[in-house]
Amino acid sequence: MIIVLRAGATDGDVRQIEESLKDRGLTAHISRGVERTIIGAIGDERKLDPEVFEGLPIVEKVLRILVPYKLVSREFRKEDTVITVKGSSVGGKRLALFAGPCSVEGQEMMNGIGGSVAACGATFLRGGAFKPRTSPYAFQGLGEEGLKILAEARERTGLPVATELMDPRDLELVARYADVIQIGARNMQNFRLLTEVGKLDKPVILKRGMSATIQELLMSAEYIASEGNQKIILCERGIRTYETATRNTFDVSAFPVLKSLSHLPVIADPSHAAGKAALVEPLAAAAIAAGADGLMIEVHQQPEKALSDGPQSLRPDAFEQLISRLRKVAEAVGRTL
Amino acid sequence: MIIVLRAGATDGDVRQIEESLKDRGLTAHISRGVERTIIGAIGDERKLDPEVFEGLPIVEKVLRILVPYKLVSREFRKEDTVITVKGSSVGGKRLALFAGPCSVEGQEMMNGIGGSVAACGATFLRGGAFKPRTSPYAFQGLGEEGLKILAEARERTGLPVATELMDPRDLELVARYADVIQIGARNMQNFRLLTEVGKLDKPVILKRGMSATIQELLMSAEYIASEGNQKIILCERGIRTYETATRNTFDVSAFPVLKSLSHLPVIADPSHAAGKAALVEPLAAAAIAAGADGLMIEVHQQPEKALSDGPQSLRPDAFEQLISRLRKVAEAVGRTL
Amino acid sequence: MIIVLRAGATDGDVRQIEESLKDRGLTAHISRGVERTIIGAIGDERKLDPEVFEGLPIVEKVLRILVPYKLVSREFRKEDTVITVKGSSVGGKRLALFAGPCSVEGQEMMNGIGGSVAACGATFLRGGAFKPRTSPYAFQGLGEEGLKILAEARERTGLPVATELMDPRDLELVARYADVIQIGARNMQNFRLLTEVGKLDKPVILKRGMSATIQELLMSAEYIASEGNQKIILCERGIRTYETATRNTFDVSAFPVLKSLSHLPVIADPSHAAGKAALVEPLAAAAIAAGADGLMIEVHQQPEKALSDGPQSLRPDAFEQLISRLRKVAEAVGRTL
Amino acid sequence: MIIVLRAGATDGDVRQIEESLKDRGLTAHISRGVERTIIGAIGDERKLDPEVFEGLPIVEKVLRILVPYKLVSREFRKEDTVITVKGSSVGGKRLALFAGPCSVEGQEMMNGIGGSVAACGATFLRGGAFKPRTSPYAFQGLGEEGLKILAEARERTGLPVATELMDPRDLELVARYADVIQIGARNMQNFRLLTEVGKLDKPVILKRGMSATIQELLMSAEYIASEGNQKIILCERGIRTYETATRNTFDVSAFPVLKSLSHLPVIADPSHAAGKAALVEPLAAAAIAAGADGLMIEVHQQPEKALSDGPQSLRPDAFEQLISRLRKVAEAVGRTL
Repeated sequence: MIIVLRAGATDGDVRQIEESLKDRGLTAHISRGVERTIIGAIGDERKLDPEVFEGLPIVEKVLRILVPYKLVSREFRKEDTVITVKGSSVGGKRLALFAGPCSVEGQEMMNGIGGSVAACGATFLRGGAFKPRTSPYAFQGLGEEGLKILAEARERTGLPVATELMDPRDLELVARYADVIQIGARNMQNFRLLTEVGKLDKPVILKRGMSATIQELLMSAEYIASEGNQKIILCERGIRTYETATRNTFDVSAFPVLKSLSHLPVIADPSHAAGKAALVEPLAAAAIAAGADGLMIEVHQQPEKALSDGPQSLRPDAFEQLISRLRKVAEAVGRTL
Repeated sequence: MIIVLRAGATDGDVRQIEESLKDRGLTAHISRGVERTIIGAIGDERKLDPEVFEGLPIVEKVLRILVPYKLVSREFRKEDTVITVKGSSVGGKRLALFAGPCSVEGQEMMNGIGGSVAACGATFLRGGAFKPRTSPYAFQGLGEEGLKILAEARERTGLPVATELMDPRDLELVARYADVIQIGARNMQNFRLLTEVGKLDKPVILKRGMSATIQELLMSAEYIASEGNQKIILCERGIRTYETATRNTFDVSAFPVLKSLSHLPVIADPSHAAGKAALVEPLAAAAIAAGADGLMIEVHQQPEKALSDGPQSLRPDAFEQLISRLRKVAEAVGRTL
Repeated sequence: MIIVLRAGATDGDVRQIEESLKDRGLTAHISRGVERTIIGAIGDERKLDPEVFEGLPIVEKVLRILVPYKLVSREFRKEDTVITVKGSSVGGKRLALFAGPCSVEGQEMMNGIGGSVAACGATFLRGGAFKPRTSPYAFQGLGEEGLKILAEARERTGLPVATELMDPRDLELVARYADVIQIGARNMQNFRLLTEVGKLDKPVILKRGMSATIQELLMSAEYIASEGNQKIILCERGIRTYETATRNTFDVSAFPVLKSLSHLPVIADPSHAAGKAALVEPLAAAAIAAGADGLMIEVHQQPEKALSDGPQSLRPDAFEQLISRLRKVAEAVGRTL
Repeated sequence: MIIVLRAGATDGDVRQIEESLKDRGLTAHISRGVERTIIGAIGDERKLDPEVFEGLPIVEKVLRILVPYKLVSREFRKEDTVITVKGSSVGGKRLALFAGPCSVEGQEMMNGIGGSVAACGATFLRGGAFKPRTSPYAFQGLGEEGLKILAEARERTGLPVATELMDPRDLELVARYADVIQIGARNMQNFRLLTEVGKLDKPVILKRGMSATIQELLMSAEYIASEGNQKIILCERGIRTYETATRNTFDVSAFPVLKSLSHLPVIADPSHAAGKAALVEPLAAAAIAAGADGLMIEVHQQPEKALSDGPQSLRPDAFEQLISRLRKVAEAVGRTL
């Protein structure tokens, strides 16, 4: 950590900070420049809260040298993490493919979509039983009934299932049915929920918050990892910007940046990023080309009748064509789909 | 709701949408323009999910006419809502003043700050027992012990206390001690938490999410109101933008905009918006001038030793001077402090 | 255009707007809903400034039905525009490849890079003679000398050259040497400059402004087209967001969105979007996968000695490898490079 | 400047950077930490382009210690700059008040508004003769005729006039008529235009760009100052964010932040920030409360007939009432209006 003092800092000011660092087990390295004195803190800066020094009137700014996360960093673990559940993997050469409806709406519907996407090469079945909706008057999901329907679809398709958890009180229930637990964008900094899924021995998809930085996403992953669960799948799903032509701005740079900073696998959710079915293909292709480890795509037999996210859902036949075209892009960058 | 069809829409397309509207109890009003046919849906558009139509290939766009919230809207209730707890009010001519430390750190500290801010005219005492922290390695609050300390400080100062709730599992515990429950920015769309506090008969401070629109803030308030609890205090605390000179960008327009759209009181949190003690005064003054109904300000005896948010906390003497200067601004706009 | 009146609008209010529309040659179509009266303006809404009605106290909001640009829209021209200069094309099946240094620094350097990129398949040579720099103390480009160097490199390589124009006073000078004129991101709304290049018979690369919406980019293109010059190449180069891990956020959705709204070709500038050489490849691959018509890439023999944009420049050998890998991605989506 | 090396940097790497610094007249100060080696550059870092080091593979990041501007910084000049033109000042205890129509539309109109605003205490008359408009089909201003009308209104009112310059080719013309030259938000980084007005001996209003950081605004001011013209008035007019409830987000923190970083006066343009007449008062009051040195407000006799910016223009009577209310806020913070 680098502590930059304001012009006019006295020897006494420097000594005070030096001692404050010593109290915390670090050594101060003083460097007097022409216009500023700067103090380098030698030792484990992760133990140090920059706020301690930012609060002092004589301090101009505090600069971090190291990233504030550890367990999920690439430095902590050089090799890519590969997560495998019931034969399906995320993080290897083969791209993971999570597909299914936004919401679980019924058994017949779920079996139908499940069969279709399994036939196209999906490796995980997705579907929401608990839905975070902006409006209290909108459909909120089928709850436990939805989980049972998902479990039944798993039996039929043989695909492991992924579903969202919104509330720590539902943890046991959701964990009973799901193979992979999803933490939605709005809960990326629901730290209590992160702590709870960190205690499970089950993969967690952690979606990037609507306006979360890449560093904040990794800090939230660190919350999960610090409780013992390292089976974390990061997910880029678009961020909020001033642009209104798309629902969110798909941050395609997040794939190479996350892969360089962390050993965790990173998947893409082009359906939510775009908010429009017509954009799913170009964004999915872009994600693969940029290094994503997998995709999460919403599929529905009748998008115009979907209880949620209809406009961005693909029909099974469109999904099939999509996958056959994406397969070529995957091969072009040395992956399979 | 206005449904704009793409160029080339046929009579059949129009009829299909007409019937879909009729099924939902609305009437279609067709208007054929030179370049586009547009369909107006006559009836209660709040029952209608725009996604139903956005998903149709023939639909170019869907425009809402009405706002999607009702109970919290100014149209629903013309007069300003005033919320009173143990003699302290929010929403009237006198500005509410929530003051106290970011985190409750101990009884002596809390009593000290409580006494100081009460003497300066604070009307509520604030302090966090459960703290949402970006890092899993940072101080997370004293939990129930912190709540007990708060309650004790309430006895001494006579001020009602406000504290944050992060987890529905803590609801009963927090409600036992707190007079006002705060929902933090990161939980503004934790819909399960909103639903739970909506069932209480206790005022709720709802902080605007880091990248929440004003409409989303009001939709979250609607979640609480729809469960029966209308004692909602909205709070602007800065939004995330590209600017890095301040921790957040304080959206001062939010005060007049929220006051025109909603009957709920709106307070300002300049401490979190700025992230720096030196900016608290200008932002607090700006908020009052723009129509805020109150302030929430962080005060600490020794900001450089605070366990959280030190850099933005004011010392008791600085707080006292701040209030005496803000009093003049309040009077200039016809309020008291 | 749809004009939504506030609750309580009288017949007189409606009549006033009706007449105001009639004065402008449009017809009013009145629709009285349960909660609001809305007025549809039938006729050419492009002639109509929404501000005329937004200013009236009885008007709640004004919604546009049509896009405000015409000549550059996909509706105006169904087929893709292909622009050809001295044998090099932008907009066809083969991707355009603009390559070269950020700034022209000298003849030897320019010839060297020119030869290297030509050998790798570049179709245009780029290089800046006038450089917009954030600091007045930074290198501002070689001016006319730089243009002469570029022209000499064109002779040697046979590649048409593209260079930036910053000032209408330099128009004649730059047009004398350049085959393609670039308007930089900071000048996207320098309307006088747009008007001037609109009078030329020379292709123009129009870079998206740092915080320009897709609609604003198209409106700036309309400025050029409305003066007669339809040879416009749009360029996505990253937008400004809250994320600091990359210099800009590369908006990969802009490719499919722009291709659907406009007939103009769209190229990608991954070098500026990323600000880091290591990110150029994944972003370039993503752009191609998402439908870009070409790339603009910065190449320098010694990036660490470049007078500008060193960190994002590729060495010639890295550029060669990049192109050979991108070629596979291009083929996967039915293009060549 | 602090140069942080990647883990694993060798002595040779360190020596290379040391020599590179020596070549530029700076001294290296090496500090070997537990996890990273960092190099402090001792000397004038303003001469140093961080890009030189960011380009090296062994460098992890480069952190600036000093701000990159000098002449406009508070460190360069401790006292507030006060700019006086024909008896009207900006930067002193009395707030400057620029008022007038968005566009000059005619002599009678200009005289009428001029008389009204002068009577209310305006200290400068504003009006645009050259208008930057998003659409090429919109009214672009009256040009020289508009300037003549402005000059005539100056004679009648005795108020100095401010008007916008968009093109360096109009510099002489505009300078002949205007007392204060305005550089619009879209031209904040039109560096050639900045350089030209830097050569004048006339005050310049520099509006903050739509997505400019505070540092970039100051760098643009430095462009003007570095040419010799230090009569610069900074202007906050709202920034672009994701929020759509207001046209721009008025960054009220910019006033205290700019006043602490620079000696230049800073005024507010609440009309453009809000885009709605009803928001002008709360934002103007907030600006004054936060420390603005003046206001720029759009006034029009018939806003619904204005050729531009009607929705945000105030009628003369509303302007009069506004000023009488703002006067109280100004007094509350020790200023006059």
